[in-house]
Amino acid sequence: MSNFPSALEKLIEKFASLPGIGYKSAQRLAFHVLAQTDEDALAFADAIAEAKKTVHCCRICQNLTDMDECAICTDSRRDASTVCVVADPKDVAAIERTREYNGLYHVLHGVISPMSNVGPDDVRIKELMDRVAAGGISEVIMATNPDTEGETTAKYISRLLKPFGVRVTRLAYGIPVGGNLEFADDATLLRAIEGRRDI
Amino acid sequence: MSNFPSALEKLIEKFASLPGIGYKSAQRLAFHVLAQTDEDALAFADAIAEAKKTVHCCRICQNLTDMDECAICTDSRRDASTVCVVADPKDVAAIERTREYNGLYHVLHGVISPMSNVGPDDVRIKELMDRVAAGGISEVIMATNPDTEGETTAKYISRLLKPFGVRVTRLAYGIPVGGNLEFADDATLLRAIEGRRDI
Repeated sequence: MSNFPSALEKLIEKFASLPGIGYKSAQRLAFHVLAQTDEDALAFADAIAEAKKTVHCCRICQNLTDMDECAICTDSRRDASTVCVVADPKDVAAIERTREYNGLYHVLHGVISPMSNVGPDDVRIKELMDRVAAGGISEVIMATNPDTEGETTAKYISRLLKPFGVRVTRLAYGIPVGGNLEFADDATLLRAIEGRRDI
Repeated sequence: MSNFPSALEKLIEKFASLPGIGYKSAQRLAFHVLAQTDEDALAFADAIAEAKKTVHCCRICQNLTDMDECAICTDSRRDASTVCVVADPKDVAAIERTREYNGLYHVLHGVISPMSNVGPDDVRIKELMDRVAAGGISEVIMATNPDTEGETTAKYISRLLKPFGVRVTRLAYGIPVGGNLEFADDATLLRAIEGRRDI
């Protein structure tokens, strides 16, 4: 029903298929691309093709990389005996931003979610087990999100890790820094009280 | 400072350069594209290149088209004596959706805006004058937005059109259908009262 040229309509559809982008936003984005210079628009198209071509998962930690083994896994200054397990490459970026963590990572690419039909075999748990089985790892930090699925995944993996005798830890729960007690939900507050420390 | 592969970082930057997309959203979009099949991701890249290659402005009305003259301008069932002047191709789509308007369009591709350094020569006013000068047009409907810049542009064009003796009209102002008097701003309410009609 739109009277846009078909190539424009197609571009709008492509934008609209992205998460969180509705038809109106997709329209705006498509018009923006059309208003760009040929050079800029084609650089955008190339960036998609190039990222798709060169970016894949690190053989070891499954994080995104354009090499066979990622920059973190091959960094000899990092502590290879500690592995932090996260659901998503974005989480690696978030933890790296703290500049405090010096171990390695393992990216699951998802969490176990029976509701969404994601089972243990659909995330990279086997790859983690292989790493731990290969030896040299003394601590696995479960840093999946503190929601039901993240919790379930953390518990499931920690149970699998038991036989290997490695230490399995979980990120601390509590009030966010700069947060406000008044607005903290009950579950968080409870965890904050349970996890209280001497000062 | 990010530890994403450079091709991914570049793709995130491209998304982040789009209007209304911040870095976090750009990240989410780039990850989404990477998670797509090769086929889907390349179809997206192709859609950009294809739209950029085939879509251009109609020789007559300046609306976006993939032909020399657009489907509306070449539709002999439409009333070629009426031209509706809009700022943007999206406005053509909006008016077409009403299925009431049967005339032609003229897309300015912007409005006069001294604040943004957009002068009369930066929008397609000359092309409109050429159309009117060529004859056959009896009414020009100014359908730019009812804001300062849209008003200024409408007034500016109507003054230029005076010598041609064509009727120049403006879209009606008033309370939006389904709107609420209580929430209408003063200016709109004033215009609605001024423009009152017998029932």
